[in-house]
Amino acid sequence: MLLNLEKIAHTDKKRVVIIGGGFAGLELAKTLSKADLQIVLIDKNNYHTFQPLLYQVATAGLEASSIIHPYRRIMQDQENFFFRMAEAQSIDTATNTLETSIGFIRYDYLVIATGATANFYGNTVLQEKAISLKSIEDALLLRNTIISNFEKALQVNDEEQLNSLMDFVIVGGGPTGVEIAGALSELRKHVFPKGFRELDFVNMDIHLIQSGPDLLKGMSPKASKKAYEYLEGFGVKVWLNRRVKSFDGYKVTLDNGEQLCSRILIWAAGVTGAPVEGLKAESMKGNQYLVDQYNRVSGYDNIFALGDIAAMVSPEHPDGCPMLAQPAIQQGRNLGHNILRYQAGKKPKPFRYNDRGSMATIGRNKAVADLKLFNREIRTQGFRAWLIWMFIHLISIIGFRNRLVVLINWVWKYLRYDAGIGVIIGARKENTPVEESVEKARI
Amino acid sequence: MLLNLEKIAHTDKKRVVIIGGGFAGLELAKTLSKADLQIVLIDKNNYHTFQPLLYQVATAGLEASSIIHPYRRIMQDQENFFFRMAEAQSIDTATNTLETSIGFIRYDYLVIATGATANFYGNTVLQEKAISLKSIEDALLLRNTIISNFEKALQVNDEEQLNSLMDFVIVGGGPTGVEIAGALSELRKHVFPKGFRELDFVNMDIHLIQSGPDLLKGMSPKASKKAYEYLEGFGVKVWLNRRVKSFDGYKVTLDNGEQLCSRILIWAAGVTGAPVEGLKAESMKGNQYLVDQYNRVSGYDNIFALGDIAAMVSPEHPDGCPMLAQPAIQQGRNLGHNILRYQAGKKPKPFRYNDRGSMATIGRNKAVADLKLFNREIRTQGFRAWLIWMFIHLISIIGFRNRLVVLINWVWKYLRYDAGIGVIIGARKENTPVEESVEKARI
Repeated sequence: MLLNLEKIAHTDKKRVVIIGGGFAGLELAKTLSKADLQIVLIDKNNYHTFQPLLYQVATAGLEASSIIHPYRRIMQDQENFFFRMAEAQSIDTATNTLETSIGFIRYDYLVIATGATANFYGNTVLQEKAISLKSIEDALLLRNTIISNFEKALQVNDEEQLNSLMDFVIVGGGPTGVEIAGALSELRKHVFPKGFRELDFVNMDIHLIQSGPDLLKGMSPKASKKAYEYLEGFGVKVWLNRRVKSFDGYKVTLDNGEQLCSRILIWAAGVTGAPVEGLKAESMKGNQYLVDQYNRVSGYDNIFALGDIAAMVSPEHPDGCPMLAQPAIQQGRNLGHNILRYQAGKKPKPFRYNDRGSMATIGRNKAVADLKLFNREIRTQGFRAWLIWMFIHLISIIGFRNRLVVLINWVWKYLRYDAGIGVIIGARKENTPVEESVEKARI
Repeated sequence: MLLNLEKIAHTDKKRVVIIGGGFAGLELAKTLSKADLQIVLIDKNNYHTFQPLLYQVATAGLEASSIIHPYRRIMQDQENFFFRMAEAQSIDTATNTLETSIGFIRYDYLVIATGATANFYGNTVLQEKAISLKSIEDALLLRNTIISNFEKALQVNDEEQLNSLMDFVIVGGGPTGVEIAGALSELRKHVFPKGFRELDFVNMDIHLIQSGPDLLKGMSPKASKKAYEYLEGFGVKVWLNRRVKSFDGYKVTLDNGEQLCSRILIWAAGVTGAPVEGLKAESMKGNQYLVDQYNRVSGYDNIFALGDIAAMVSPEHPDGCPMLAQPAIQQGRNLGHNILRYQAGKKPKPFRYNDRGSMATIGRNKAVADLKLFNREIRTQGFRAWLIWMFIHLISIIGFRNRLVVLINWVWKYLRYDAGIGVIIGARKENTPVEESVEKARI
């Protein structure tokens, strides 16, 4: 099929092709809103995902539609913007052409902002059986699987089977792992027992496994210690200095040989870049593109990489700029301004990461925040951090209506100890059918 | 696997097993909230669906989660209520046992409230290619397919191909058909052109095909005439006295041989009961159960049928009580009271259908309503009918939070001419791949 860009093609404007509409790609497109250029965004989904709240969709606190926004609506007033729903397949640098799943597109500037996917370090069984949290499909899969497993648990008397259906193993003690462990422990306390009166939620164990000695690596020791305390207080079993060796869909084996019984393993342990084929091997650093301080991919003049897919090594960040939302957004904005400078024949400005800090919420009134404002470091935990977390996430969601709906859901959950969206629609992960292990009986 | 009902089984209370948690089954369960009985609801989904607003989910106006509600939450304070997510398979009247997909369950009273499915009158190709609107999965499938087809239309220059991707054929001029035709014409006017600036929505035709001479059969001639006028005013092509002979996923052939080109055929033309196996053939009337004025299935004492699956023939309704929400709810309530009377050794009361009228909304400020209040008939059309329609639907939705979110979405859509939920998540219907007919090209 042709990539029909007739209206786009019949023009002499230069074309910026952006692959991926995450934080970086979307910010770049917006920054170029007034530019005398064609901006073409390619994404396999037709919507932007606000990833920091995926865990709340997974734990039935928010509707999927509250944290996603169609590109066509976000950009409907930007006349130089064009969207095509397609997957990028390979880059031909000789002809400045990108091949996509729906056809070929020529570019003047190519920007790769494909982000990251979960990194299973080559363990394909783990990859097949675990659930990660990088997309809205992942989040819905997790939600459906949790509720569906509890429905199955009603059928089971055997204690090990019960544990396998009601226990959770979360791998990775970063913000995602910590937040989902906290959210599950709140559901265990306030929500699940009301709906599933026949199940005993004393049986529900939440294991959080962290390979290093601290949770929330990269945050202050105080934040990391408080997060640990909060989770312990909520009854989450935190395993420090432990790694997962294998998971067969029923049993999790740790590096010390210990075994945990669970059908759900949530993988929040690491991410890796999702590159597009076609660039020189020398341009790569693992699965990321090596970029200079202008986000130019090493060895190319008109190809750029942004955000999680870019490895920008600097004296401050010898391992590359951190794979977080803020650097992605800031790189997108900086590149936008630089493209305008290229167009005006000016020199580009190097990227400087303005680290505003980071935070994680653990539960009701409990969060940790290390903030950097006006060169001051503010470290706060508990209720104040929780309010700041909510405020910042709320204003970051795209769209007034989405913000309003999220706010209503949060207020509702806070006042009523209720998580609203406990429905099963669509796929669930059927690890090791329960049918295998329990007989059919008649009552 | 066993249907493990340990806590349910270990009791000497009589058990009411309800198959299906639609309007009828749910109302029955609620009516029995204080009864000294066990109420066990079996449903293949874990949520109740507010079917009258499915068309708004399909046309991207509402989130799925706003019009569905998990049974466990609706009933969380009702102590005699138990839910099992399962499909009913067959009834063994000799042992008073129901076989389900997860095991067997004994009943004292069995209530069949399985509702209706789309009736394709045996046309299996039509059934495979068309989209009906009976479940939330149907609604999401339609939404995803519409948006996905427009994305594909961007790739196409051939006029017939464009028509096939942008045109709609709706079969059935009842409330569902009329409402979805109206909603699509509003999207064509206000919403789609903003997001898809490269498509010319003059190309989008909406065909509504009605087998009889009138739309909204069963409503007043005035309502039916007004609905026709409104739709014509919106540019919907209404075909009266026409039937669909066949649909191959690309071409719709009418009974007069005329052909329409469309990949989407929305089937709102008729429904049929969805019975459970195991009862005598003499108890059936087509796909419905013959019931007496107490909703008892003919030939059985302790088996009842409610709502769309029940054929209750009376002098007023020689073809059976109409297959609508109101009779279903009222039958559920009446049977609940009758079961309490059986328990108290009293005589049951016959069902009397209190027809409160019916209504349909066609679009912004435009609806038709034939209401019956205090034995007065009120017939109204236009803005007043539209306000009444919205008010009645809003208060009928279960859950305060859902009502609030629906209200916000409606107000937003009204003020901003915007339909918020135009995202593609999950399955779409791929009728006749576009790839077959368009060459791959390079720009």
